[in-house]
Amino acid sequence: MKSISLLGSTGSIGRQTLDVVSAHRDQLCVVAIAAGSKNLAMLAEQVVEQRPELVSVPTAADAAKLNELLGARGAGVVSIMHGDEGLEAVATHRDAHTVVTGVVGFLGLKPTAAAVRQGKTIALANKETLVAAGAAIMPMVKEFGATIVPVDSEHSAIFQSLGQYQARDVSRLWLTASGGPFRTWTREQLEHATIDDALKHPNWSMGPKITIDSATLMNKGLEIIEARWLFDVPAMNVRVVVHPQSILHSAVEFVDGSIVGQMGLPDMRLPIHYALFYPQRVASERVPRLDLTQLSQMTFEEPDCERFPCLATARAIAGECNTLPCVLNAANEVAVEAFLQGHIKFIHISDQIERVLARHNPVSKPSLDDILEADSWARKEARSLLKALTN
Amino acid sequence: MKSISLLGSTGSIGRQTLDVVSAHRDQLCVVAIAAGSKNLAMLAEQVVEQRPELVSVPTAADAAKLNELLGARGAGVVSIMHGDEGLEAVATHRDAHTVVTGVVGFLGLKPTAAAVRQGKTIALANKETLVAAGAAIMPMVKEFGATIVPVDSEHSAIFQSLGQYQARDVSRLWLTASGGPFRTWTREQLEHATIDDALKHPNWSMGPKITIDSATLMNKGLEIIEARWLFDVPAMNVRVVVHPQSILHSAVEFVDGSIVGQMGLPDMRLPIHYALFYPQRVASERVPRLDLTQLSQMTFEEPDCERFPCLATARAIAGECNTLPCVLNAANEVAVEAFLQGHIKFIHISDQIERVLARHNPVSKPSLDDILEADSWARKEARSLLKALTN
Repeated sequence: MKSISLLGSTGSIGRQTLDVVSAHRDQLCVVAIAAGSKNLAMLAEQVVEQRPELVSVPTAADAAKLNELLGARGAGVVSIMHGDEGLEAVATHRDAHTVVTGVVGFLGLKPTAAAVRQGKTIALANKETLVAAGAAIMPMVKEFGATIVPVDSEHSAIFQSLGQYQARDVSRLWLTASGGPFRTWTREQLEHATIDDALKHPNWSMGPKITIDSATLMNKGLEIIEARWLFDVPAMNVRVVVHPQSILHSAVEFVDGSIVGQMGLPDMRLPIHYALFYPQRVASERVPRLDLTQLSQMTFEEPDCERFPCLATARAIAGECNTLPCVLNAANEVAVEAFLQGHIKFIHISDQIERVLARHNPVSKPSLDDILEADSWARKEARSLLKALTN
Repeated sequence: MKSISLLGSTGSIGRQTLDVVSAHRDQLCVVAIAAGSKNLAMLAEQVVEQRPELVSVPTAADAAKLNELLGARGAGVVSIMHGDEGLEAVATHRDAHTVVTGVVGFLGLKPTAAAVRQGKTIALANKETLVAAGAAIMPMVKEFGATIVPVDSEHSAIFQSLGQYQARDVSRLWLTASGGPFRTWTREQLEHATIDDALKHPNWSMGPKITIDSATLMNKGLEIIEARWLFDVPAMNVRVVVHPQSILHSAVEFVDGSIVGQMGLPDMRLPIHYALFYPQRVASERVPRLDLTQLSQMTFEEPDCERFPCLATARAIAGECNTLPCVLNAANEVAVEAFLQGHIKFIHISDQIERVLARHNPVSKPSLDDILEADSWARKEARSLLKALTN
C-alpha cells in the first residue's frame, strides 16, 4: 500500500488524482489532503470518501466550516489544520511516500520545498515550483535524496522516454504543444480574443490559469524552464514543436539521433497514474487507450513566436540562473488573472510581463528567500503597472 | 574498445555496420568477419580497411581467391577459414564482445546459436533465427547468459522503448509497417506486379529478400514472430499498424495505457549504432537527424490482410511453439527466390507458402535439430511444388 499526500485536492489535478486512487484502493491510500477555500463542500465529500488522517484548509474560518460539514455528514474524527503550517504538515506527513503537488501557482513552492527536505517522492504538478525556484530547489533535491516525478504530461512523457539514461545522453528535448485555441488565429483576430475564446482548449481539460497559459503559449515557455531544471539539460536544447492532436506528449532526442517519445490520448490521469505508481507500471482501467490503427494522423509545425510573444519572452530567459524566471512567472500569474477578470486584453498579457521583467534587478544563484522576495516584488510591480494602465 | 565479429559483411547490414565502425575507430574494432562468395573483391577491401584477425568465406575456392586478392593489395597476414566451420569460428571469436549477424535467411541460425552458447552479445539482424528457431534459441539465451540486441529497426525501437521494463509490464507491442511499394495498389494491379515494382521500397534501402518481404507484408508477419520471442509477449498482443512515412519505428503499449515509441529518419545505421554501443548512448555524426518541426505529418492505418494475405498466414501461426514458423520461413524464402527469378507471380507467393504449411506435420517444442530438419523438408517440398507448378 502506497500512502499519498495531496495538495490541491479540489482542483483539476487533485480530483483526477483521487479518481486514480479510487480505482486502486488496494494499492493506494490518501493520508493527508489540502485544498483551497473555494469548494469546501467538495473537500468534505473527498474527506468522507478517502478518510485521510489530516486535512488542511487556508484559514481558521475554513477549518471551522469544514468541521461543521464533516459533522453533518457523520464523518469520524479527522485532524484539521490551516494556513501555511497546515499545508506544510500535509506536504511532510510522516506516512506519506508520495506527495502530489496539485496546487496552482507560486503557492506550491513552500510546501514542495518542505516535502523535498523530508526526502519524499514528489509527484510534481505545480510547474511554478521549478520555474520560479529551480535554482534553489534542485540542489535541495540532491541534498535530501528526494525524487521528483513530473505530472505535467510533457515532462512525464520525457521522464518516461528517458528511461535509465541521463542528461549526458540527451541531445535535445522535444516539448510538444497543442498550439492552444488560437493556433490558427491571425494577429488581428487575436486582438479581439475573449476570455471564453481563450478558455476553449482543443484537447485538454485543465484549470483556467493553465488553459490561458496554453493559449498564450506561455505554458511552453514555463515548460522549457521546468524541463531545463528537471532534466539538467541546457534550456537552448529544449525545443518546442506544435502538434495539434496532442498524441505525442513529448520526446527525448538522444546523442545518437534516436528519438524516444511517449504517446497517448490527452488525459491527465495517465501521467498522474504513472507518477503515483512510479517506478512500477500498473494496469489501469481508468486511462483511455490509444489504438494506433484508428489514429489517422499526427501533424507537426514550428511554433510562431510573433503571434505568441510569451514563448519568445520565456525562451529568452529560460537559461538564466537568477530571479528572472521567478519574476516571469509572477508577472504572468498577475497578467493572466487580470485577463480573466476582464481588466486587460489577451494580446496585452505579454506586454505586461515584458514590462515587469525590464524593471527587475536580477539576483544571481538565488536562495529560496531571494526567490520569495523577487516573487513579492514582481507581483507588486505587476499590479501597480496594471493599475496605471487601467486607470 | 569494443571488439566486433561481423557475419555477412558485404550485405546491406554488413556494409552499414562497417560504416558505423569506421566513424568510431577509437571505440569499435572488427576482429572477425564473414561474407558470401558474391563479392570477394569488396570483402578484400573491407579486410584491408578493418584488419580483422579472422576472415571466413563459403568455400575453399573462395578462400584461395580471397587470399590472392589480399596478396595483390599487400595486406598483412590474415587467417582465412571457410564453410560452416569458418562461419562458426567468426561467430565465436574469443575476443568478440558483440556478434553482428547480418547474414540473410536461415543460414544465420547455426552461427547465431554458436555465439549464444558462448554467452556473447548478439546484434541480431537475421530475423529468421528467431522466426524459425525461437522455441529452441530463447531457452539457450537464458541458459548461457547471452544478450540479444535486435537490429531490425522495429525491434530496436521496441527494445529502446521498453527500457528497464519487462514483458509483464507490456500490454501490446505496436509494429509499424511502411506498407511497402504496393500499399495503395488494388488486387487487380497486384496481379501484374513486376520484380522491379516490388523492389522499389518507398523508405528503406535494404537487401532484395527483405524488400520483397516488405512488399508482401510477410516482413511484418515474420516480425510478429520475432517480437513474440524477443520480448516474451503473446503473439496476439503484437499488433501491426501501417505508417507510410516510417518515422515511428515501433512502440510499446504498457499495461497502464502509456505508449512509448522510437522515432527517427529511416536509416539502418541508427539501430546498428545503437546495438553496437548498447547499453551506452554514444553521439553519432553518421545517423541523420530528424527535426520534428520539419516533419509535417505521420499517418496511420489498419493493414489490409486481404490484399496482403502473407500477413494473415504468418499471424495465424505466430503463436505456435512448434516447427510451423520454421516451415513458414523456409517456404517464404523459396517463394521469394522463385519470384525474384521470374518463376512465379507476386500474388502467388502466399499460395506457395500456404501449400507447404498445409502439408507439414508440426513437431512441438522442437530442438535445433528438429528445426534444421523441418527447414530442409520445407525447402524440398516448396521446390517440388514449384516445379510441379512451372512445368
